[in-house]
Amino acid sequence: MTTTASTPGHPFLDAHAATIEEASEALRTRSYYSRYPGSPSPRVYGEGSAEAGKQAHDAHLGRAFTALDDQPSTGERVGDEVSPYGPTLGVTYPVLDLDVALPAARAAMRAWRDAGPRVRAAVCVEMLERLNKRSFEVANAVMHTSGQPFVMSFQAGGPEAQDRALEAIVAGLAEMERIPASVTWEKPAKGDPIRMQKDYTVIGRGVGLVIGCNTFPTWNGYPGLFASLVTGNAVVVKPHPRAILPLAITVAVCREVLAEAGFDKALVQLAPDRDGGTLAKDIALRDEVAIVDYTGGPGFGAWLETEAVAAGKLVYTEKAGVNTIVLDSTDALKPMLGNLAFSLSLYSGQMCTAPQNVYAPKGGIDTDEGQLSFDELADRLATAVSRFTGDDAKAVEVLGATVNDQVRANIAAIGEIAAEGEGRVVLEPRRITHPAFPDAVVYAPGIVAVDVRHEDVYTEERFGPVSFLIATESTEQSLAQLADTVKEHGAMTASVYSTSEDVLEQAREAAADGGVALSENLLGQVFVNQTAAFSDLHGTGANPAANAAYTDSAFVANRFRVITSRRHV
Amino acid sequence: MTTTASTPGHPFLDAHAATIEEASEALRTRSYYSRYPGSPSPRVYGEGSAEAGKQAHDAHLGRAFTALDDQPSTGERVGDEVSPYGPTLGVTYPVLDLDVALPAARAAMRAWRDAGPRVRAAVCVEMLERLNKRSFEVANAVMHTSGQPFVMSFQAGGPEAQDRALEAIVAGLAEMERIPASVTWEKPAKGDPIRMQKDYTVIGRGVGLVIGCNTFPTWNGYPGLFASLVTGNAVVVKPHPRAILPLAITVAVCREVLAEAGFDKALVQLAPDRDGGTLAKDIALRDEVAIVDYTGGPGFGAWLETEAVAAGKLVYTEKAGVNTIVLDSTDALKPMLGNLAFSLSLYSGQMCTAPQNVYAPKGGIDTDEGQLSFDELADRLATAVSRFTGDDAKAVEVLGATVNDQVRANIAAIGEIAAEGEGRVVLEPRRITHPAFPDAVVYAPGIVAVDVRHEDVYTEERFGPVSFLIATESTEQSLAQLADTVKEHGAMTASVYSTSEDVLEQAREAAADGGVALSENLLGQVFVNQTAAFSDLHGTGANPAANAAYTDSAFVANRFRVITSRRHV
Repeated sequence: MTTTASTPGHPFLDAHAATIEEASEALRTRSYYSRYPGSPSPRVYGEGSAEAGKQAHDAHLGRAFTALDDQPSTGERVGDEVSPYGPTLGVTYPVLDLDVALPAARAAMRAWRDAGPRVRAAVCVEMLERLNKRSFEVANAVMHTSGQPFVMSFQAGGPEAQDRALEAIVAGLAEMERIPASVTWEKPAKGDPIRMQKDYTVIGRGVGLVIGCNTFPTWNGYPGLFASLVTGNAVVVKPHPRAILPLAITVAVCREVLAEAGFDKALVQLAPDRDGGTLAKDIALRDEVAIVDYTGGPGFGAWLETEAVAAGKLVYTEKAGVNTIVLDSTDALKPMLGNLAFSLSLYSGQMCTAPQNVYAPKGGIDTDEGQLSFDELADRLATAVSRFTGDDAKAVEVLGATVNDQVRANIAAIGEIAAEGEGRVVLEPRRITHPAFPDAVVYAPGIVAVDVRHEDVYTEERFGPVSFLIATESTEQSLAQLADTVKEHGAMTASVYSTSEDVLEQAREAAADGGVALSENLLGQVFVNQTAAFSDLHGTGANPAANAAYTDSAFVANRFRVITSRRHV
Repeated sequence: MTTTASTPGHPFLDAHAATIEEASEALRTRSYYSRYPGSPSPRVYGEGSAEAGKQAHDAHLGRAFTALDDQPSTGERVGDEVSPYGPTLGVTYPVLDLDVALPAARAAMRAWRDAGPRVRAAVCVEMLERLNKRSFEVANAVMHTSGQPFVMSFQAGGPEAQDRALEAIVAGLAEMERIPASVTWEKPAKGDPIRMQKDYTVIGRGVGLVIGCNTFPTWNGYPGLFASLVTGNAVVVKPHPRAILPLAITVAVCREVLAEAGFDKALVQLAPDRDGGTLAKDIALRDEVAIVDYTGGPGFGAWLETEAVAAGKLVYTEKAGVNTIVLDSTDALKPMLGNLAFSLSLYSGQMCTAPQNVYAPKGGIDTDEGQLSFDELADRLATAVSRFTGDDAKAVEVLGATVNDQVRANIAAIGEIAAEGEGRVVLEPRRITHPAFPDAVVYAPGIVAVDVRHEDVYTEERFGPVSFLIATESTEQSLAQLADTVKEHGAMTASVYSTSEDVLEQAREAAADGGVALSENLLGQVFVNQTAAFSDLHGTGANPAANAAYTDSAFVANRFRVITSRRHV
């Protein structure tokens, strides 16, 4: 092979060397770093960029998405996206011809391999730079497929997704560069030493399949996409049928960059499917496919974790869980309630990281406003959420729209759920009319108070704005429940409020035992549902909610292999 | 948790800091490094050490192995080992009580976790230092379970296994230390920056099960054992029923060190089984078990790769394959033939890395002794092997003894095999009487010449001293066969001889395509069946012979998880 481990002179290499160096250093130290600014302000992204992005998004609507018409296609088109805010998107996408596309993807990997890790990383960063320029267009697409409020669509769907992608790129690069491209090995021996030259070539595993989700098509899709790509694999992106557009734009950008960089566009392809189709399963079992990244419901996730792995595929999943907060005591009651209200309200609890179960002792908690009984705590929390979501026009910018019927069914069932748990609804979910999108189904969160013994009720994931305040015998029991429920049902996040260092220590123990990351006494602008690229891991892979984390070395190290060739010198 | 990421002051920390640093540096650079000398000379290991080791081994024979009697046991004992050299070992081992042992292993992991990566690495190195001192004892145990010749038993079973273990330890340490123990994260914000302290705790996945093989109980067992242990897991070692003693000694040493270091011995336990038992399967499916390392036949390997992975276990396998040599041309015919003769003879082809299939063009090959026809090449190779193994007393020190009936059956069937492939036996396997062990079944290698079209005959693994010289249309076809057979049937090694840089380049391409490491024009004291720790990867994980490599980052990075706790500062 014409291995040029770093192909000096590739135009993107110099352009992105500094970014790769900064991001790599941030990953090493886990210090604060962000390449792509989170503020949608015109001072950051330029005057008129928001409007231009909106126009670019609107230009997709009601027509064929032609930027991918150079993909091998069966000739059919699919696309039934309807915005959770109401409007039908009316975009159609070409159906991928797998029998042409997958062999083409496999064949494209050779030149991609020969380019070497550094060039691949630079090409991937170029993709992010261009995606960043299209953040407003992607934000509108994310908003009108996921139902996220606009600012969140922009931040999580644009720059934060791009930062997570950059993190995956440099994490992959670091692992590939753990092994040098070449070494002269010299073993002492009687007489002359034995000298060998050894060359090490990183090869991808095969085609990576990225299965996108409805709620965070880019944020959850990019880590797997870029982790597989940078490590030498081709990627097929199978978006959620109701959230195709953000990933279609993404794939089009990736292909444009690949072509400009002198590589085969077949390295990144989109495989859209109709709602209820079996394409994800079909692709996952194809011989060409070696890696699957999945975010979505536990049913298909479990299938991947049993059937696809048994078929020899490397599978990374993020499914579902019951995120947990333990309230023990606080010296900042109002800020704590404000922080909780935000976490419960943001995107109407439709984040995989949103808290569902809040444990507090029956005897109440100590606060800076004195001892609060359990019922007083329930009322204060309900009031905090009500106030935070009291202004409809402001509230919709936090809540977004409900994404699907399951979420709406969970909301509608809150009374039943409370009855089933012999509990009480301490806060009814409040229907809100969106001032701009009257068809959007928007709800402020509801809260159910139940006793700890009704485990069946609160250990099921209730995706959306229904959460539980659970009365326990003691904080000790709360922490035991945290560990046990996480071990059994999974969780992406856990959080604790306590003024006692002993309790915090026990909470760390419980979190480690359950295998979930812990946030302690969060106040102000840091929320349990948010993780920062380059510093916080998203998920742990240590509990049933997800078998992997963004982005640790386990997420990238297995996506490639190393082939040695050795000879005397 | 009382997390002390590096528990300063642990006595083994200082003792092994330099070793860990040197070995880590060697792994980074892939340069030559060996901690444990391969020479069994008294000048290296001390006067009388060989004799003392032999005595220590002999002292185990014919009695209960009591050093593990502090394990939780069912009260039964097993042990039917018979040396491939003839004598019955007569050692019995306590049967592990899984219902006590596995929960104990799990419980022991907490303090092991809290010790932190550095202390774990130092404790593991202490185990190796003590195993090194017992290399002669282990060598005798390896010899009389595997049938390896003594010097090989010493080198591969002792210091080289210890070096591979050290490599796994520092590879695991490097991955664990990719994430710092703690960081202060500071995000710029309006007004004061947001400051968070984030602590990262490495946690093991669960109990690691190491399933040993008959031929290389320590060399193939140590990487998984120490990779799992250093990353915070407990380990249960399930040795091959015919090769228990080397791993029993190993486990006893590990437990002795654990106890001295202040840890629970339950972190390393031996689970011996009777021949034909199902213990490996039973343990693999236990809830406490998270990781399985396996070396052995493809049948059980395939079960692990389908059933155990579907049950959520992380599985690392090394199974079987057809190792390949391509002969194109040489300017050093005699040294080449000498090198091949050694590779074919060493341990009678019972290494997983031993070549089986040698391809050469029908038209013959160019050499420094002129053009050699295919038949002349066959005769020269046969002669080289015959001469190399001509002196019985010397030959047995290279060949060792055949390890099992399957190997002997393959030898006996050589005529049938040749007939099946319409080929000819160019070298009959020669039965050799071992001067010291008359009951040992020792054979010098046999070679069958066949045409490339008889793929069914030579693509089946014929474990032991039966190899094929395969006549192809051209070197191009030889290389295509290399890539295709490796992709389909797997291989641990591949090798090429050519004076043409073009052919070598094509061979690298074929090896990368097949996913196998390549050795080019090996002569002298470097053999295709041998890999050097810290530099050569053993296997690639990129073809069906093995799903993992010793030791790349993929082999270690997934054995642990990282739990974050974060709070405001």
